[in-house]
Amino acid sequence: MKEIQVGLIGFGTVGSGLAEVLIAQQQRLEKRTGLSIRLARVADIMTRELPLQFAGVQLTNDANDLFNDPDIDIIVELIGGIEPAKTFMLKAIEAGKHVVTANKALISQEGWEIFEAAARKNVEVGFEASVGGGIPVIKALKEGLVANRIESIMGIMNGTANYILTRMTDENIPFAEVLKDAQAQGFAEADPTYDIEGIDTAHKLAILVTMAYGMKISLGQIAVEGITRIEPVDIQFAREFGYRIKLLAISRNHGDHVEARVHPTMVPDNHLLASINGAFNAIHFTGDAVGNVLLYGQGAGKMPTGSAVAADVVDIARNIQSGSVNRVPALSYLPDQFVDRRISTMEELSCPYYFRISARDEPGVLAAIAGILSKHGISIESVIQKGRKQRGPVSVVMRTHTAQESSIKKALHEIDSLEHVTSETINIRILETEE
Amino acid sequence: MKEIQVGLIGFGTVGSGLAEVLIAQQQRLEKRTGLSIRLARVADIMTRELPLQFAGVQLTNDANDLFNDPDIDIIVELIGGIEPAKTFMLKAIEAGKHVVTANKALISQEGWEIFEAAARKNVEVGFEASVGGGIPVIKALKEGLVANRIESIMGIMNGTANYILTRMTDENIPFAEVLKDAQAQGFAEADPTYDIEGIDTAHKLAILVTMAYGMKISLGQIAVEGITRIEPVDIQFAREFGYRIKLLAISRNHGDHVEARVHPTMVPDNHLLASINGAFNAIHFTGDAVGNVLLYGQGAGKMPTGSAVAADVVDIARNIQSGSVNRVPALSYLPDQFVDRRISTMEELSCPYYFRISARDEPGVLAAIAGILSKHGISIESVIQKGRKQRGPVSVVMRTHTAQESSIKKALHEIDSLEHVTSETINIRILETEE
Repeated sequence: MKEIQVGLIGFGTVGSGLAEVLIAQQQRLEKRTGLSIRLARVADIMTRELPLQFAGVQLTNDANDLFNDPDIDIIVELIGGIEPAKTFMLKAIEAGKHVVTANKALISQEGWEIFEAAARKNVEVGFEASVGGGIPVIKALKEGLVANRIESIMGIMNGTANYILTRMTDENIPFAEVLKDAQAQGFAEADPTYDIEGIDTAHKLAILVTMAYGMKISLGQIAVEGITRIEPVDIQFAREFGYRIKLLAISRNHGDHVEARVHPTMVPDNHLLASINGAFNAIHFTGDAVGNVLLYGQGAGKMPTGSAVAADVVDIARNIQSGSVNRVPALSYLPDQFVDRRISTMEELSCPYYFRISARDEPGVLAAIAGILSKHGISIESVIQKGRKQRGPVSVVMRTHTAQESSIKKALHEIDSLEHVTSETINIRILETEE
Repeated sequence: MKEIQVGLIGFGTVGSGLAEVLIAQQQRLEKRTGLSIRLARVADIMTRELPLQFAGVQLTNDANDLFNDPDIDIIVELIGGIEPAKTFMLKAIEAGKHVVTANKALISQEGWEIFEAAARKNVEVGFEASVGGGIPVIKALKEGLVANRIESIMGIMNGTANYILTRMTDENIPFAEVLKDAQAQGFAEADPTYDIEGIDTAHKLAILVTMAYGMKISLGQIAVEGITRIEPVDIQFAREFGYRIKLLAISRNHGDHVEARVHPTMVPDNHLLASINGAFNAIHFTGDAVGNVLLYGQGAGKMPTGSAVAADVVDIARNIQSGSVNRVPALSYLPDQFVDRRISTMEELSCPYYFRISARDEPGVLAAIAGILSKHGISIESVIQKGRKQRGPVSVVMRTHTAQESSIKKALHEIDSLEHVTSETINIRILETEE
């Protein structure tokens, strides 16, 4: 039986997950591929000894030992971050190794350099685990949905943010409190910035947009808003209006231009994305032939990510076996077929909006607000006024019909300048769906 | 640019859908594959002329013209049913053509003969569209989840049955009425037997079980129960208990034996399968590494099915281009690796149950029922008694703790023999989930 040797850089949570998957599934993979896919070497600077179950796997603290090993076919990078991950990937490619990674920051920011280097050396780059963890979403986009013009992408792609919003929704407790608890339980990082500010989600959206439409996009072109200003009161009002608040990545393909944005979004209760709870991820595509498709699963974690990385390893092993390396282009379109498309600005966006205006409970407030909205061509779908106390401000909560973001911004600027209004208005975009 | 020629047998709804997809996506597929994938010939006995958009495609009423055309690489069978579809598939294979089909009846019943013939001629058999319509579920199982022991499969895999149950739930109207309306609107066939009796779902489950576990299964080994005896009152009681009634295919992998069954099931509201409404399909896998994964989309229809068939065509075209035919085994495991596993009987099943007992409203009824259940070791989780009228029977509705089906059957036989009980007790299995 032909042997495929795998080298692994990084023996942290995901790295040891991959190692466990490869050992546990060795026999099953033989029965499916006719190949012996074997973890041969691990490079890690922190690990002094591999657990007993990995007897026979060589450990080194120098990644160069993997690049220089002529028997290694595939090198997996699971250290995360930009450097030294990028240098390791490029060195592995230079040494003629196929590479696999789960590193969304690297692929979304420095991907082109890596893909170009791989094309020159005719090796493969696998990155299934970089989006949606264990969910086979990259393969679905490249192969299963190949005969579709992708019209839109909508996704819950950060488990930490979704976990926090779910607990805020179910338990009616504030963001900071849930975050603290999530950190204590290991569901959120010590520095959760990338997760809660939407940056991690934007990395993943950039990868999907590139592949779905065959275009280049840089992270700076994606408008990103996190979930830190969402309050339980907004979640409760959302429920009264029939919505759940989710941190969504949204992209729509308008042909000559493309939307690409990440922000908290009110999702109608009857949309499947509203039912995605806890640390789970889901990615929803609309294709011109297939219609609506959704893929759901664990977007992170040791074993789910290990499952996706292993799928890439098997895919490449099969191509080595069949002599069909780069049978499917890494980014779904052939490298010379990428086109430029304009990314629209947030000001161009049109959707319904939710506002929560804090105002003193005085006559004329609602009239003043309504006047401003009307002046900017924004029509109100419904209003809730709650929280009337002895003294102090009340919440005026509104849902608008579809309006343009540029008008919304101007109107909110004027509303927030009213003397009745006591603090900055919260506004949350509402998802428009055909379903 | 290398050209791949496709021959199509059957120009009905799905056939014309595939033709439309191949024409509409021709340029996109060139940009993704570097191949010109062209529909060259259509064989159909009913069609006298192809629509204008298919100018250049040759029409014949004799499928042999396709088998005998040396330029055709891939033949797609979209006529459905066993014969002559099977003969056409075998003839195409004998002529050295790769074959693609959406035919779940054929693949689940006569698949082995077709796969063996294809192996002898070293051609491929694509059948992505046979399960879940446009959802890329076959590819996910063969490739994306390759490094997993599949622990369970649960699916809503018949759009007609799910459409009927959804309307019964939302509108509180009886089965027969919804069916009639669905037929009038084209959502259900004139002869809906396969859909409403669970047979179509069993075909799909047989295909998934074969591939997920690497074992042979025949349709006769799958216990099948349809949705015709579900009444609106059961749907309403289900909701009170926190469930939705769905026609589920369920299989669990116990290692030495396997469950495989299709029946109406009460699905907890908080499980994602409870939120799959209308004609949509969803397939839920649990893998030992990946955990829970769900794939959702349109399980039937002209364009979604066309999308899945086209994905198979592209997959095969890529293998022709790369010289990597049968790079992935058709049934996910290598042909010599299939093992026999026992399929357990329904009597062995353990799950919670829902009963609706119709009884005369007389003293001692509940005591008699409870006595019988207790005798058979069945414990009651909760009881609802409703429908008290002037005269006539009342409904005694119960949810049991987990019990064995063999005991349930004995107990229900005794209960239905009580003189208070006026008609056969309705029982519906309740889904146990960890989520």
